[in-house]
Amino acid sequence: MSLVVWDDVRAARARIAPFAHRTPVLTSSSIDRMADTHVVFKCENLQRTGSFKFRGAVNAVASLAPDDRTRGVYAHSSGNHAQALALAASLHGMPAYLVMPENSNPTKVAATRGYGARVTPCPSTHAGRRDVAERIGAETGATFVHPSDDPRVIAGQGTAAAELLDEVGKLDLILAPVGGGGLLSGTLIAAAHLAPDARVIGCEPAGADDASRSLREGRRITDFTPKTIADGLRTPLGENTFAILREHVDRIVPVSEEEIVTAMRTVWERMKILIEPSSAVAVAPLLGRTIDAKGQRVGVILSGGNVDVSAFFEVLSAEGAV
Amino acid sequence: MSLVVWDDVRAARARIAPFAHRTPVLTSSSIDRMADTHVVFKCENLQRTGSFKFRGAVNAVASLAPDDRTRGVYAHSSGNHAQALALAASLHGMPAYLVMPENSNPTKVAATRGYGARVTPCPSTHAGRRDVAERIGAETGATFVHPSDDPRVIAGQGTAAAELLDEVGKLDLILAPVGGGGLLSGTLIAAAHLAPDARVIGCEPAGADDASRSLREGRRITDFTPKTIADGLRTPLGENTFAILREHVDRIVPVSEEEIVTAMRTVWERMKILIEPSSAVAVAPLLGRTIDAKGQRVGVILSGGNVDVSAFFEVLSAEGAV
Repeated sequence: MSLVVWDDVRAARARIAPFAHRTPVLTSSSIDRMADTHVVFKCENLQRTGSFKFRGAVNAVASLAPDDRTRGVYAHSSGNHAQALALAASLHGMPAYLVMPENSNPTKVAATRGYGARVTPCPSTHAGRRDVAERIGAETGATFVHPSDDPRVIAGQGTAAAELLDEVGKLDLILAPVGGGGLLSGTLIAAAHLAPDARVIGCEPAGADDASRSLREGRRITDFTPKTIADGLRTPLGENTFAILREHVDRIVPVSEEEIVTAMRTVWERMKILIEPSSAVAVAPLLGRTIDAKGQRVGVILSGGNVDVSAFFEVLSAEGAV
Repeated sequence: MSLVVWDDVRAARARIAPFAHRTPVLTSSSIDRMADTHVVFKCENLQRTGSFKFRGAVNAVASLAPDDRTRGVYAHSSGNHAQALALAASLHGMPAYLVMPENSNPTKVAATRGYGARVTPCPSTHAGRRDVAERIGAETGATFVHPSDDPRVIAGQGTAAAELLDEVGKLDLILAPVGGGGLLSGTLIAAAHLAPDARVIGCEPAGADDASRSLREGRRITDFTPKTIADGLRTPLGENTFAILREHVDRIVPVSEEEIVTAMRTVWERMKILIEPSSAVAVAPLLGRTIDAKGQRVGVILSGGNVDVSAFFEVLSAEGAV
């Protein structure tokens, strides 16, 4: 039996309901035509803090025992998990300690601080992150919340697929991006219960294809150098997510950098929503028709929308528009 | 009594239901904090063809008598109405003839053609548009559908506010942008019936402030040179929309170009949705607190999301990201 089961996802739904948005499900007839299929998009880019990560973070925080609440939570993250955990803790009136690499995007660091978290910079190496995080944990007595491998986080991420399936009914195929594997694992647990006949496929950058290699080789690949614009998908699977993928996933498909950017642009232009590159990874196989989905009902989890749009507005200013 | 009444909006709701999206209503706690109020956003940028214009266009098309359907519809438009009317006609299997200025955005011309419409270029002057449109009308016997002053169009645009009020209940204040006045007029008719105590305020660029001048002077100002990035709001009020505004609107507030761009960027970054400058005009007075809305419940109609994002992707390519 998995470490995370349907009852955990069901409990997470009730637990996060007062805090998380029930995000909209959108469709696009243009994209349906391009993909020759019918696609429903679960818009986690419109979730609080701009990504699905808030679901797992707030489920973990709300699961803490009273004593642990006082001491708060900590994690290391350069991006979406940091903001998500910071807001989740803030909504529960508890402290959050985030260890963020020195080269993190300043906007994300500012957003994390803006939610009231204490941010400690660390070297951007794996060992550097770990050492600083361990020190923070020892100093504060806070509870560690791993961005993808914590069972409470996995259960929380599964609520996105659960809401989607509740709303749209039967799906033949569900696509989700895979980095650390929290979102895909939660999606697999939810789908196994609510849509046992649906295929669930993970999508990852060809330049960070550790999930497909891990499944093929039967061992978790952690030592690799990711080369991808999809900054949310550069991390390896965890022990728990690897186990859940081995048990449930149909397969993992690779996506090229060019396909990622084309898919991102197509969604911006056709659907008028901002998605980050990591989300586009789960759209690309449909647009490129590299997955057989003809005539099927397909669900896509759009994981997040935290992309830096400065460049657009700098060009606008340079053009003298304002 | 107005040319357009609540019963027309109610009839339009039923008529457009099979064709138009019921668009999501989104909120943002960041924007609430910035504006010191609670804002619900009706997301017409997520409407089919990327703007509220589809509501009015499809209501007009679906209202045609059988004989008129055969001959189709025509209009002149450089932008959102062209795409909206083209798709509305196409969904009804009837021809659409669009007269578009030679300097129209090529993407919008291509999209209009993509919906199966016949596009005829015209000079970008007012007289040039009118002459070519009259010729097309005479040649085809098609029905003219004005982008903002047609009563069927006004009734259709009112369905956005009607859906919003149905979904969120009481509002103290409703904001909509005003260019030709179709959206604001429809909003006024819907609010007068569903939320008679709510103030409805129109928002327009200071560089195209004909609506506020028209109301102040008691006559419709049509001869002015708009200077604004908000390309959807460069047109004068029509006779019908002017009459409806005079009867119902609380007031019109001006918005500077800088405020428009700041509001557009804030919505992109905080809400992860693309809005065009014309939409941002109705957000800016809240962010700048130039309207007294403290502690109130405010509805904003986000009119559209048709903005050219090429610049963003060109920078991405130039940076060697792909």
